[in-house]
Amino acid sequence: MDPIERLSRLFEKFPGIGPRQAQRFVQFLLRSSPSARRELIDAIQHLGGSVRECPECLRHHAGSKKVCALCSDAGRDVHLLAVVANDADLSALEKSGTYHGRYFVLGGTLHLGSEQATGLHLRELLRSVPARLDAGLEELILAFPANPEGDATAARLHAEIQRGFPALKVTMLGRGLSTGSELEYADHETLKSAFENRR
Amino acid sequence: MDPIERLSRLFEKFPGIGPRQAQRFVQFLLRSSPSARRELIDAIQHLGGSVRECPECLRHHAGSKKVCALCSDAGRDVHLLAVVANDADLSALEKSGTYHGRYFVLGGTLHLGSEQATGLHLRELLRSVPARLDAGLEELILAFPANPEGDATAARLHAEIQRGFPALKVTMLGRGLSTGSELEYADHETLKSAFENRR
Amino acid sequence: MDPIERLSRLFEKFPGIGPRQAQRFVQFLLRSSPSARRELIDAIQHLGGSVRECPECLRHHAGSKKVCALCSDAGRDVHLLAVVANDADLSALEKSGTYHGRYFVLGGTLHLGSEQATGLHLRELLRSVPARLDAGLEELILAFPANPEGDATAARLHAEIQRGFPALKVTMLGRGLSTGSELEYADHETLKSAFENRR
Amino acid sequence: MDPIERLSRLFEKFPGIGPRQAQRFVQFLLRSSPSARRELIDAIQHLGGSVRECPECLRHHAGSKKVCALCSDAGRDVHLLAVVANDADLSALEKSGTYHGRYFVLGGTLHLGSEQATGLHLRELLRSVPARLDAGLEELILAFPANPEGDATAARLHAEIQRGFPALKVTMLGRGLSTGSELEYADHETLKSAFENRR
Repeated sequence: MDPIERLSRLFEKFPGIGPRQAQRFVQFLLRSSPSARRELIDAIQHLGGSVRECPECLRHHAGSKKVCALCSDAGRDVHLLAVVANDADLSALEKSGTYHGRYFVLGGTLHLGSEQATGLHLRELLRSVPARLDAGLEELILAFPANPEGDATAARLHAEIQRGFPALKVTMLGRGLSTGSELEYADHETLKSAFENRR
Repeated sequence: MDPIERLSRLFEKFPGIGPRQAQRFVQFLLRSSPSARRELIDAIQHLGGSVRECPECLRHHAGSKKVCALCSDAGRDVHLLAVVANDADLSALEKSGTYHGRYFVLGGTLHLGSEQATGLHLRELLRSVPARLDAGLEELILAFPANPEGDATAARLHAEIQRGFPALKVTMLGRGLSTGSELEYADHETLKSAFENRR
Repeated sequence: MDPIERLSRLFEKFPGIGPRQAQRFVQFLLRSSPSARRELIDAIQHLGGSVRECPECLRHHAGSKKVCALCSDAGRDVHLLAVVANDADLSALEKSGTYHGRYFVLGGTLHLGSEQATGLHLRELLRSVPARLDAGLEELILAFPANPEGDATAARLHAEIQRGFPALKVTMLGRGLSTGSELEYADHETLKSAFENRR
Repeated sequence: MDPIERLSRLFEKFPGIGPRQAQRFVQFLLRSSPSARRELIDAIQHLGGSVRECPECLRHHAGSKKVCALCSDAGRDVHLLAVVANDADLSALEKSGTYHGRYFVLGGTLHLGSEQATGLHLRELLRSVPARLDAGLEELILAFPANPEGDATAARLHAEIQRGFPALKVTMLGRGLSTGSELEYADHETLKSAFENRR
């Protein structure tokens, strides 16, 4: 196949990229210097070489040790464990600076209309709970997006944890008006939570 | 002036309507039947004739009595008073069915960069508090939009009420993830509230 | 019915207006002065009283005479007749200042998937052609939007005119790149016309 | 630097890609298989290795010969030369199948407010004209986007070609209604061209 066409097809697999933007990426690389292309190749190679999955939180990291910097940080609050859908959500919470506990990356959310949890690390999470309880875990926070998939995932996890570890406190992120919300455009559920969580 | 142009100019004053849509409204009325135009004229006339401001909550209503249906409804919870920016927000809260207390329409929110509260019924609200306390008022809920103007209005009202009625409990609508919120796109303040309001 | 609700329902019938904006219009009128509401009522009344359909071009106008200002303007080029879908398109062409012939308002475009031309003044147009030819008409310009409905209407009109008046020249507005068009996003038909109409 | 961060920075340089989507690309590659990452690396390497600039039209191609497939195709009409801004526009014209002459890629359009034509292959184009005239060139088509930059580039090229080769016919792509254009929203220039190019 034509090298331009071949690379364009690969960029089309990138998230959110259609044929037109994939072609634009190729044109961009064609106009780039050979050293810029080598730099990109090198960065992709290093990504594969140095990145590993943390055995504790299952997120991808590029540290020199097996366990990631967050999981090996003794300063993090061991009483709290936030279960997030993916690395990007973990990263968003870290950047907000509002949470100082531990994390677990579930690997996604449930698909609606499907009972299966393929690809989600539900077993791994449940298996890790006894050791975490021994280490002081008191509360598991289901930090999923406020959408039907997030809610379904939270409900499923909640049920499984209550069955296995009835004494473990399980919470969900609070609902209410998010920054910028107008009352006029808010849905019933958001207004209800906003009243319930008033303070 | 040309009658088409004249009406078009008046429609341009409607909220969110530019010259093009104003002209489309006129074309729509031109193509309407004479009886449809009379019906519209009649409805505007009746609006002016029958609508009044409720002396209790200051909202506009079209009831036959001076006091509006909500304020004269003995079934509403007299312990709670929600202060809202305008009639549309009151209407949104009513439709959500999540709140059963009384209302007060402030008439807008503060403009940032201005100390003035022109057009806002701050005095009227404060003056009404003693009678409301006598009637059983226990909590005043500042139900403003989650934006800087709403926050500034809430801060100002909070300060004035605390000065005048230090015993009255004042709350604000809860913040957190609103329906549809993705963690990845949520701002710091929303994530912070979401963690604080977790349950 | 509640006067607020009643007027809101009428505004919902306006083109492009949903329930929320209809309510906002009512709130706007509620906050308007009584004299502003009377001004609006008066303008709607005058619209009905003074506007009439021009017997020549079939557009709505508010002149004091039966025939509209454009059709009675001796300075307009009688050799050209532009057939447009509606008053708004006529108005757009007039504002552009690029055309100085006569007009005929067809009253809409054909709906795809329907042979019927209900509401379109096809008969009126065809019946007027002999007198127009006597007055000097040389070219009939089908000035419809560049979409499938416009094309279908042009094709139908073209056929009917050729059958009835085979000597009359019939043209369509030129296709090509419109202002702002990027080649990358232009469709096949537009590029084809752009090459054919190059100059 | 962290390999994740390093690759994310490189993706941020891609056209239209911000920090958030750059991170998403990295997450996508982290979740990809090692063989998928190798495939991408290989495709980028081949792009650099096999792609060259055609010495005739200056576009990038991946053919085995120096001259590109279009320029060496004896079936293309040698009487016409379309000057386009970039490879993407050339590609769009080819896909439309409406043009069968030769191409020249100028490398961009003029920036408004600047007399400079840095990076544009104006000299190369002018220098190539004598040989093209010998080969049969009759018309040079300025196929630029219908925006101020495209118009400025066309005006500049037109002037330079007329000075150097006054006998060479120079045309521009036709303007008019592009597919989907509504008369109501068309600008003055587009309507003017639509009337002039009517047929």
